[in-house]
Amino acid sequence: MSLLVIGSVAFDAIETPFGKTDKIIGGAATFIGLSASYSVKPVKLVAVVGEDFPQSDILLLEEHGVDVEGLQVKQGEKSFFWSGKYSRDLNSRETLVTELNVLADFDPIIPDSYQDCKYLMLGNLAPQVQRLVIQRLVNRPKLIVMDTMNFWMDIALEELIATIEMVDVLSINDEEARQLSGEYSLVKAAKKIMAMGPKFLIIKKGEHGALLFHKNKVFYAPALPLEEVFDPTGAGDTFAGGFIGHLAATDDISFENMKRAVIHGSAMASFCVEKFGTERLLNLTAEEVEAREALFAELVKVVPAAALANVPAV
Amino acid sequence: MSLLVIGSVAFDAIETPFGKTDKIIGGAATFIGLSASYSVKPVKLVAVVGEDFPQSDILLLEEHGVDVEGLQVKQGEKSFFWSGKYSRDLNSRETLVTELNVLADFDPIIPDSYQDCKYLMLGNLAPQVQRLVIQRLVNRPKLIVMDTMNFWMDIALEELIATIEMVDVLSINDEEARQLSGEYSLVKAAKKIMAMGPKFLIIKKGEHGALLFHKNKVFYAPALPLEEVFDPTGAGDTFAGGFIGHLAATDDISFENMKRAVIHGSAMASFCVEKFGTERLLNLTAEEVEAREALFAELVKVVPAAALANVPAV
Repeated sequence: MSLLVIGSVAFDAIETPFGKTDKIIGGAATFIGLSASYSVKPVKLVAVVGEDFPQSDILLLEEHGVDVEGLQVKQGEKSFFWSGKYSRDLNSRETLVTELNVLADFDPIIPDSYQDCKYLMLGNLAPQVQRLVIQRLVNRPKLIVMDTMNFWMDIALEELIATIEMVDVLSINDEEARQLSGEYSLVKAAKKIMAMGPKFLIIKKGEHGALLFHKNKVFYAPALPLEEVFDPTGAGDTFAGGFIGHLAATDDISFENMKRAVIHGSAMASFCVEKFGTERLLNLTAEEVEAREALFAELVKVVPAAALANVPAV
Repeated sequence: MSLLVIGSVAFDAIETPFGKTDKIIGGAATFIGLSASYSVKPVKLVAVVGEDFPQSDILLLEEHGVDVEGLQVKQGEKSFFWSGKYSRDLNSRETLVTELNVLADFDPIIPDSYQDCKYLMLGNLAPQVQRLVIQRLVNRPKLIVMDTMNFWMDIALEELIATIEMVDVLSINDEEARQLSGEYSLVKAAKKIMAMGPKFLIIKKGEHGALLFHKNKVFYAPALPLEEVFDPTGAGDTFAGGFIGHLAATDDISFENMKRAVIHGSAMASFCVEKFGTERLLNLTAEEVEAREALFAELVKVVPAAALANVPAV
C-alpha cells in the first residue's frame, strides 16, 4: 500500500566516542524512508533540500525505492544542517550546530501522484507543517503516524496539540510523554495523550525498548541488548520507518499487527545504531532483517510450563 | 525443596510523595522471605535483630511460613534501622538514617536443622558475612543466589569479588553491573561479571524490567507498566525472593525455568510497590499472583504471523 513520508532530509555531522563524521546524509525522512523501503516501495517523499545537497545522495534515495518527485531542491539555498556530539555513554548529546536553512520556510507541496497514499508518516518537523500535509491530502489516509520531539512542546505546544489531535498513532520517547502529559507514570501519561486524539501511542524508551498503548491494552517490545552502540542518530526515525513500513506492506492496522510492526521497527533501529548515520541501512538483506527479528522473538520467549519437564537442566 | 535465606531483618521508616511511615518491619531477608513463602515453605531464615524488635513481627514472619530458628535476638542491642526519603518521581532516594546496630558484628549462625538446604539466597549484606554462610554449610547447596549493592563495591570490593566467585546467580541492578564491570554496555558487563564466577547474571532495571544472562543467551522480562508506584522499598528483594522461591519449589535450575522464575519474581515485585513496606506481601492469594503473572505474559505476547489474518482489524 502506498506510503507518504514527510520530514527533514539534511546534513548531519556527528561525533561519538568512537569517531566523527564530516557532513553526511541525515534527517528524519531519510532514515524513515530508507527503513520503510525494506517493507514497501516506493516510499513517496515530501521534503526540501538546498542546492548544496549532492545529486549522488538523491540518487542513493532513489536506488532504495524512495520516490523523490516531492523532494524540493531550492536553488541558492542551503540544506538543513545539524551537528551534535554524544556523551561517553551515548545517553545524552549536545547540539553543536543547528542551521535551519531551507527548513525555515518549508512549504510541503504534495505532488498529484502522491494523493492516493493510504499510509502517512509525519516525521519530526514543525507541527504546523505536519498539519499542512494532512490538510492538503484530498482523502484522509487510512493511517497517520506522527513523530515529534520535546523541542516543539517547548516552543509550539498549541500547534503541536492541534496536530496530535488529527493523527492515529503518536510516537514519542518516555521523557516527551511525561512532558506532554504532565504525568510521571507512563500508564497515566498514555491515557492523557490518547485522550488528545491518537488511538495508539508508542512510547520509545531507547535501550529499554518501546511500549505500544491502545485503549486499555499495552504491549512491551524490549530492545535487544547490544554489545556495542556506535551512533544512536536516527534510531527513532528508523524505528518509525520500520513501523509504518510494516503496516503499509501488510495493510493491517489491528493492534496485533501493530505489535509486529513495533518489533520490526525495533529490529531496524538495532541495525541503525551499529554504524554512523544511515550507513547500516543501505545494504541490509531480507535474511539479515528476518534473523534480527528472530532474536527479538527469542529475547522474550518462555516455554510453557507444561513443556518444561522436557527441558534438560543445565 | 528447602530454602535458606540470609539477610537483614530490620526497621524501616519511609517517606514517599504519598505519605510516610513510622518504624515498620523491613530488611532484605524480610522481603525475600515473605515473597518466597508464596512458592515454598518453610523459608529458613538466618538473621539478627535487637531486643526492640516486636514479638508480633516475628510471629508475622512465622505465620507466613518463615522458620525463625536462625533468627538471633540480641538482648541489650537494637535492630538495624534505615530511614529514607524518595524523590517525587520515586527514581532516587536519600538515606536519612542508617543505624547498623546489631548488624555491625553479625555472626551468621546456621542451625543444624538448616544444613539440608538445597537453595541458598544471600540477601544484601556485607559480602564477608554472605561468604561465611556458604563456608558454614557442610554441603554446598544446589544453587546459590546472591544479591548485593553498589555500597559494597565502594567499600569492600575485594571481599565482594571473593564472594561473587562462589555463587551461581548474581542479582544486581544496571548501574551496579556497570560499576562492577567498568563496562557501559550491559552485554559486555554481563560477560565480564560471569567471568568472575556466576553462571547466571540477573540485571534489574526497575521500571524497565530485568535481564537474565547465561553463557551467550539473554532473556528480557519487561516490567509491567504500573499506573501508580507507591513505595519502591524492598522491590529488588521481593524480586529475588520470588525468583529463588520459584526455583526451590520447582527444583529445576535450567535456563528455561529461570526465565519463569524471573517473571514470577517480577510479578511479586509489582505487588510490593503498591503499598508501604511489606504490606502488600502479607495477604496475597494464589489467584492474585497467577493473574499478575498472566499480565506479564500478555505484555509481550505476539500472535504468530500465520494466525494474524484471523485477527479483526480495529
